[in-house]
Amino acid sequence: MASKFYSERNLRFLLYEVFDVVSLTKLDSYKDHNKKMFDMVLDAAAKLAKKLLFPIFEEMDRNQPELVDGTVKVHPQVRKILKEFGEGGWITISKKIEHGGEQLPLMISDSCNYIFSAANYSAAVFPGLCTGVSHLIESFGNDELNQLYVPKMHSGEWQGTMALTEPQAGSSLADIETSAELTNEGYYLIKGQKIFISAGDHDAAGNIVHLMLAKIKGAPPGIKGISLFVVPKLRPDGEDKLVPNDVITSGIYHKMGYRGAPIAQLSIGDQENCRGYLVGEAHRGVFYMFQMMNEARLNVGLAATAISSAAYYATLEYCKERKQGRKVGQKDPLQPQIPIIEHADIRRTLLFQRSINEGSHALLLQCCKYADLQNALEGEEKEKYSLLLDLLTPVAKTYPSEMGIQAISQGLQCLGGSGFCDDYPLEQYYRDIRIHPIHEGTTVMHGMDILGRKVIMKNGRALELFIDEVAFTMSLAAEKSELEIPANQLKEALKLLKEVTDYLLGLAATKDPEWFLADSVLYLEQFGITAIAWQWLNQAIVAHKALDGSCSKKETDFYQGKLHTMRYYFAYELPKIKVLGERLKNSDGLTITMNSDYFND
Amino acid sequence: MASKFYSERNLRFLLYEVFDVVSLTKLDSYKDHNKKMFDMVLDAAAKLAKKLLFPIFEEMDRNQPELVDGTVKVHPQVRKILKEFGEGGWITISKKIEHGGEQLPLMISDSCNYIFSAANYSAAVFPGLCTGVSHLIESFGNDELNQLYVPKMHSGEWQGTMALTEPQAGSSLADIETSAELTNEGYYLIKGQKIFISAGDHDAAGNIVHLMLAKIKGAPPGIKGISLFVVPKLRPDGEDKLVPNDVITSGIYHKMGYRGAPIAQLSIGDQENCRGYLVGEAHRGVFYMFQMMNEARLNVGLAATAISSAAYYATLEYCKERKQGRKVGQKDPLQPQIPIIEHADIRRTLLFQRSINEGSHALLLQCCKYADLQNALEGEEKEKYSLLLDLLTPVAKTYPSEMGIQAISQGLQCLGGSGFCDDYPLEQYYRDIRIHPIHEGTTVMHGMDILGRKVIMKNGRALELFIDEVAFTMSLAAEKSELEIPANQLKEALKLLKEVTDYLLGLAATKDPEWFLADSVLYLEQFGITAIAWQWLNQAIVAHKALDGSCSKKETDFYQGKLHTMRYYFAYELPKIKVLGERLKNSDGLTITMNSDYFND
Repeated sequence: MASKFYSERNLRFLLYEVFDVVSLTKLDSYKDHNKKMFDMVLDAAAKLAKKLLFPIFEEMDRNQPELVDGTVKVHPQVRKILKEFGEGGWITISKKIEHGGEQLPLMISDSCNYIFSAANYSAAVFPGLCTGVSHLIESFGNDELNQLYVPKMHSGEWQGTMALTEPQAGSSLADIETSAELTNEGYYLIKGQKIFISAGDHDAAGNIVHLMLAKIKGAPPGIKGISLFVVPKLRPDGEDKLVPNDVITSGIYHKMGYRGAPIAQLSIGDQENCRGYLVGEAHRGVFYMFQMMNEARLNVGLAATAISSAAYYATLEYCKERKQGRKVGQKDPLQPQIPIIEHADIRRTLLFQRSINEGSHALLLQCCKYADLQNALEGEEKEKYSLLLDLLTPVAKTYPSEMGIQAISQGLQCLGGSGFCDDYPLEQYYRDIRIHPIHEGTTVMHGMDILGRKVIMKNGRALELFIDEVAFTMSLAAEKSELEIPANQLKEALKLLKEVTDYLLGLAATKDPEWFLADSVLYLEQFGITAIAWQWLNQAIVAHKALDGSCSKKETDFYQGKLHTMRYYFAYELPKIKVLGERLKNSDGLTITMNSDYFND
Repeated sequence: MASKFYSERNLRFLLYEVFDVVSLTKLDSYKDHNKKMFDMVLDAAAKLAKKLLFPIFEEMDRNQPELVDGTVKVHPQVRKILKEFGEGGWITISKKIEHGGEQLPLMISDSCNYIFSAANYSAAVFPGLCTGVSHLIESFGNDELNQLYVPKMHSGEWQGTMALTEPQAGSSLADIETSAELTNEGYYLIKGQKIFISAGDHDAAGNIVHLMLAKIKGAPPGIKGISLFVVPKLRPDGEDKLVPNDVITSGIYHKMGYRGAPIAQLSIGDQENCRGYLVGEAHRGVFYMFQMMNEARLNVGLAATAISSAAYYATLEYCKERKQGRKVGQKDPLQPQIPIIEHADIRRTLLFQRSINEGSHALLLQCCKYADLQNALEGEEKEKYSLLLDLLTPVAKTYPSEMGIQAISQGLQCLGGSGFCDDYPLEQYYRDIRIHPIHEGTTVMHGMDILGRKVIMKNGRALELFIDEVAFTMSLAAEKSELEIPANQLKEALKLLKEVTDYLLGLAATKDPEWFLADSVLYLEQFGITAIAWQWLNQAIVAHKALDGSCSKKETDFYQGKLHTMRYYFAYELPKIKVLGERLKNSDGLTITMNSDYFND
């Protein structure tokens, strides 16, 4: 077991030095906060993670939930986690004061989530879902739903879930078949099947509250006929008791990783006795759900970054301690072996991990800042940050997830055979992170989202705003002669991104839409690599400025580490966009025109 | 569970159409064979794999070996597998007739291994090790060792192992400490610790025969002081009985994948009563071991390809059956959902998997062919093929292993949440393959091997020969106007490889050797991508020729599939060398000059 799962120093660097989270306290929404309070919250989150979550990181993996006599048994500590998160106010810290929260900026509350996910992602999911689900009811549910369900999720007594997926409707939400029929009593009778429901059933909560998508009988087909319901496992009978609501756990999945959290299959209304309560208006379910999904997508990116960072610190610890071999050129076998961190290839690997993780982390905090500004501002400014957030959400979900896998895989490689065995945590991180490019929309869904929706919306306004943001960072870099080369590289990258976008939009105008979107995954990758380069240039500007002042040895090492990682990224990672851009600008319809029979043999 | 784990059609295409394995029967060594016999052997291997190995692919994973009262318990079927492989002659099919084998070309025997590994890699390892270990004793051991140990491994009664790694000596073999002391009786007393020993102990064999590296007391330090010993778990007492030889299994590893095979830690000579028997001459152990290691390295590449191919067929099956969504542009939700193989991004993924797997498979059979020619020919010709094999072994070990991981990961992604769960085999393939860039030398070891040793040896003769081979393929492609573009791309790729090599050799002459080798992993990657492009052009030439004749619909689909996969590879994969080449030609010593303290925070 490694001893460190996140870097407090790096988190503070990003929050205070790069993104100046304290500046938010000038805004009305966050005016009651200050740096001291942020520090206290972050410290308390770290303590909680160290005390409750990290110690059972392995245990929860080795003892995965099982369905026993119709009930899902999870690790006994989960009940305590939910309770302490509820009592400590962690489930509500980002919520508005009138909803019982602390109204902390997302930059701070998501940094707490980052710490929790780095310590033990499976464990962090339980309270995290309570936050999102209760928030959705607060936003769109009526008073009765708010009074009945929200306080119990805030206190960690009841578990919230998102119940979207069905056997025939995974990525294609339009094909949901779970039905809802209005009764004379005002509630709906729900009937259907749901699969892949995270925390969909377990014995650590007094009740499970599903936010469920279903179709009211007679609704229009497709997305526009989907409504959102609260469907509890146990329903209040109006006399202070809970009675079963005909929601049966028909199975749970055995997964490669992320094994501490139960993922359930649900059978709903088999006895024609499952009651659901409409949230907001009928047929607007997908619209409502997207509020939670957008938050959840940032959280997926954040969790992927957290897991990959934890893996990095475990790798780093090993590489400093493990002695093996000698410097290339040192042929004397009588010389002592050296720590492997002295080998060039190990350093290349560590720089790769850092560049992915710390670049991803910066992009995510950038998105959180946009969200905070969007929430605090009005009018044009609000729209600006809202558009930037919309545009970057698929990037901030996908890049950390896809590249986090690569980063952990490389870290595992540093440990050799030990990386493959469960004496070290790398293999678990490698298994745990693999879910992230899948849940909350697979990578291709986000590719189609950014290219087919986000880049186009409002006549390309979001992309223009993004380009302005990057240009601003480049203008700051121009003041430092040492940053001229990466700034120019970024300028070229931005130019290429525009060229590729223009080419693809041209294709959209002249060809079948399939051509336009066929390689959207590559487009998303190119976008992601460019966005991370931007974040590295931004970090380098701050590091350079800090080194201009007087720094202790320790601080100098830290800022030099940032500059070297930036150099690594611009030398090894950013150039990959050329290959992607070249391919994207030369569509030949290979994957569209080919006959599926060519896969037969 | 998928129904298909390998493609007989593709195997025959490569063996008969691309590499003309039958042409080998013109050579003396293989003159007793013919196509019909090859067919029979391949058919029998497929039957055996279907009957014995594939049915317990999942079971062996779910019931991993455990150390119980000092003995490692493996899946009960392993005993039957070893027995049937022994009785069926599978352990010896590639061996010379005078060693009791069939003297089949490696192209055929390794194709059988490919089938076995695709069906169940963990299971295939047991008999596979018996082949390698007995072969090493045949090659270098004295008559007594040959008589005592070889027949029992040929029959599958005893298990062979390679016992190299020690706690302080993983990649750095020079640091081995296990000691050997000559006694008056002629045997050596062995004492030490070995770790990560595949099949290092189990209850499905009557005995375990370790080929163990150790240092004779007083031997020179480093690699030149290492000797090779046969160290049995039970030693023949000279009176037809076996007595314990003081080799204790001190533990087994719990691994992420490849879980059916036990990997043991051994404690040797704790009671000063472990006898070892010298193989060949003293101090030549590493030289001998390299014979087996080179074979083993090809087998690792082959197994990685096999696992990744099996994953591809499981993915393909799912993509043909699973219906989800509609064509981009089809907005009517009342239209039926379509099989996901109709989506462009799924096809891109399937083409990616195919291009990696079938390209790797071709390169491995190319290496087998070089090995067969090396074994059958004499003089200059022998040296030619031997050099080509030496040069390409690190590529053929590494490219399939590293890229097979990516291919399986992409396949898993096609299944969405199902890919992450154990109802489908993708997650197991993903776990199983992760060992391959680690064992038999990690990727960086092979990077340093190809650049620091293979490219330089004999004044660069091997690289010249490789370039000639590729040029020959390009000359064949020149006859087909449709292949002009990929042939030109390959020409450019070869030019870049030469430029990069020259640049790096220049660096070796002027800078510290660390600079020369710092990015050898990138060099190996560039080499690999180029070599696979060569193999794809070669396959395309054959496919084009076949399509010129009269083909059934089924055959046309197959060859068109080859051509489309080739097009995919040249459009999406080959261009990646530009980024690698650019980086390699611009060494700035980033990973060498930086201070390790910069990783502190």
